[in-house]
Amino acid sequence: MDAVELITTKRDGGRLSDAQIRWLMQGYVAGTIPDEQVSALLMAIVWRGLHPDELATWTAEMIASGERLDLSSIDRPTVDKHSTGGVGDKVSLVLTPLIAAAGAAMPQLSGRGLGHTGGTLDKMESIPGWRATLSPQEFLQTLRDVGGVICAAGPSLAPADRKLYSLRDVTGTVESIPLISASIMSKKIAEGTESLVLDVKVGSGAFMKNVDDARLLAETMVGLGNAHGVRTTAFLTDMDTPLGNCAGNALEVTESVAVLSGGGPSDLVEITVELAREMLRLAGLDADPGALLASGAVLPTWRKIVAAQGGNPDAELPEASERVVVPASRSGYLTRLDAYRLGVAAWRLGAGRARKEDPVSASAGIVWHARPGDQVTEGQPLLELHVDDPGRVARAQEALVGAVEIADEPVERRPLIIERIS
Amino acid sequence: MDAVELITTKRDGGRLSDAQIRWLMQGYVAGTIPDEQVSALLMAIVWRGLHPDELATWTAEMIASGERLDLSSIDRPTVDKHSTGGVGDKVSLVLTPLIAAAGAAMPQLSGRGLGHTGGTLDKMESIPGWRATLSPQEFLQTLRDVGGVICAAGPSLAPADRKLYSLRDVTGTVESIPLISASIMSKKIAEGTESLVLDVKVGSGAFMKNVDDARLLAETMVGLGNAHGVRTTAFLTDMDTPLGNCAGNALEVTESVAVLSGGGPSDLVEITVELAREMLRLAGLDADPGALLASGAVLPTWRKIVAAQGGNPDAELPEASERVVVPASRSGYLTRLDAYRLGVAAWRLGAGRARKEDPVSASAGIVWHARPGDQVTEGQPLLELHVDDPGRVARAQEALVGAVEIADEPVERRPLIIERIS
Repeated sequence: MDAVELITTKRDGGRLSDAQIRWLMQGYVAGTIPDEQVSALLMAIVWRGLHPDELATWTAEMIASGERLDLSSIDRPTVDKHSTGGVGDKVSLVLTPLIAAAGAAMPQLSGRGLGHTGGTLDKMESIPGWRATLSPQEFLQTLRDVGGVICAAGPSLAPADRKLYSLRDVTGTVESIPLISASIMSKKIAEGTESLVLDVKVGSGAFMKNVDDARLLAETMVGLGNAHGVRTTAFLTDMDTPLGNCAGNALEVTESVAVLSGGGPSDLVEITVELAREMLRLAGLDADPGALLASGAVLPTWRKIVAAQGGNPDAELPEASERVVVPASRSGYLTRLDAYRLGVAAWRLGAGRARKEDPVSASAGIVWHARPGDQVTEGQPLLELHVDDPGRVARAQEALVGAVEIADEPVERRPLIIERIS
Repeated sequence: MDAVELITTKRDGGRLSDAQIRWLMQGYVAGTIPDEQVSALLMAIVWRGLHPDELATWTAEMIASGERLDLSSIDRPTVDKHSTGGVGDKVSLVLTPLIAAAGAAMPQLSGRGLGHTGGTLDKMESIPGWRATLSPQEFLQTLRDVGGVICAAGPSLAPADRKLYSLRDVTGTVESIPLISASIMSKKIAEGTESLVLDVKVGSGAFMKNVDDARLLAETMVGLGNAHGVRTTAFLTDMDTPLGNCAGNALEVTESVAVLSGGGPSDLVEITVELAREMLRLAGLDADPGALLASGAVLPTWRKIVAAQGGNPDAELPEASERVVVPASRSGYLTRLDAYRLGVAAWRLGAGRARKEDPVSASAGIVWHARPGDQVTEGQPLLELHVDDPGRVARAQEALVGAVEIADEPVERRPLIIERIS
């Protein structure tokens, strides 16, 4: 085998054989094929794509680079959710205890945030004492005892993905639907779940800016999941507008607890219930997640999930020392609250990181007091910036230029749940 | 500046700014931008191409990565030739003394062969005592005294090209007309010649397989040369059939000496004279290179060029210990003598190398006793394989399958000189 031959085959629009993909993946993980050859191949894949057969092998080899977890000792149906990432997306925090309370087990192996989208682990870590890392034994024990666990994926899951993703991140080769699909699905399949619901975000704050690309990504991932024996459904959901009423780590935990207590923003409740309904359907369970959530009966499960990993569910969460209010510039209807710009502003306030080694602030973030469709009055508080370091405010405000639009008449918006793909 | 931004700009079909290209080239040579980012960018360039403005800057920055030789102390017009590489192409060996004898100075900085095409330095090194490396002072002195020098390009000429070419070689990014043009022209422009004639080979044994690609390459290089103040002309010439009657290092020196003595194969004489005529025209000299060559008057200049670099022009050249004759399989007209297959066979006999560190054999090679258009008789010697290691013969013969075609009638062939581009 010869790496140049693989590269030129793909560069010229040809198809890689199973043996070539296996050789490549094993050689890359073992360090015998260098980064510069793999990055050239990755760019050729961005250019030429991967045939479904190539993608299936590529994903299978990524899974085979590590271990596939065995959840057969869990005496509940297992079902997980993955979101492609959005602003204010704290759904996993609510969904994990909800699914557990409904009788299934949700092994939510999560990541940290990068750029303008938040990460579930960063949010959970704003809870004093909570730790993201579990041993395989602790992971299984918590899943068995509580029915839900939110933790970091261990290094044994799809190590090829970790290495490839780091390379893609610095070589402009992230933006490829087959490579994104393989990256997400290799980890989710290796996680051992029987069923999976994908939340593919579409819009300014999402990785996928338009519905066509998002649909292709969703279809590709659903195909990969089902091919590997994981019952998989996807939803395309709106990310032109951020979810809920805030973005920021501790702020989002507080909002999640409000939903778990039977309240909270309606959009967050809607998407959580819809995803839960599909997950429970795939798990073969007959429960009404909307009623369960509204009853507040899920809150004790949340407390158990937090406590199982050292967190104190009664602890005060960190709060920012400074608040800067941005008032409405005029009266009228709020017609736009741009997810991307709000995400970047929250990131610049300290809620996110630019490099994976960077720390994040637990308390920084943004709260918005109106959502598109709402009527606002000139001068009323519209946004509230939470920050500990006032030096960060100016650059956050720069990011907010054009984030908000107020008009005389409300505008029609697309539904939160755009499409279901199975 | 950010390498990922450069890569994604080119990946998405955008244009790199002069400042970005300068930053990239300087950073790559300095080692601050790593191979994996540059190889991804190179693949994006293979995909998207370079706009003429980008290519001009790219080439200028490659030149600026080293020194541009100053040939102003040479009191003759300077003119050089570059061939994109072919099988049996020993033109530089004849052309350098011919141009010198005609009154111009030819600073022929050459390379070694890689793959199935030979390298001028490998051929010259089959002359006992001859050395390819000269100091800048020796180079200028020989050019001044003799009017012609054939030597290795020093490390100070376009070092960015050396580093980029090594990377392209292992990352499947060689095949790009703008990158090939920049690589060739950066070195030729840095060499300091006032005029340049390009021999762009087209056909099975050449890098460019069809006339359209070759024309685009030629036009691109002519444009770059003229933009940098080097008067540049290109010829497209045939490389479906190898040049002359042999391929192999010492064999080609012997054939070159035959041409310098006023004899030699007619195709080799034709192309050499045509290139020389154009070079002398660009140099503003009124000489008849055909008559000069036929007179044998160039031979003393050849002897001076050889002797100036330690070579003994009277030494016996190495000869292979074994000869294997391939007879004509039938009677008729030779209609094909495939340059690529003969080149690969000569390479496998030892005349070429697979990696730039490999040694080459001075004596190995192939002689052919007929050319397309010639009548042959079944059983007559057609090819003669020269080899020291008989173990190499079988694989060379494999490469020769389909190399020769004999038919009842001769076929029309395209002319040796296909097109002139200026």
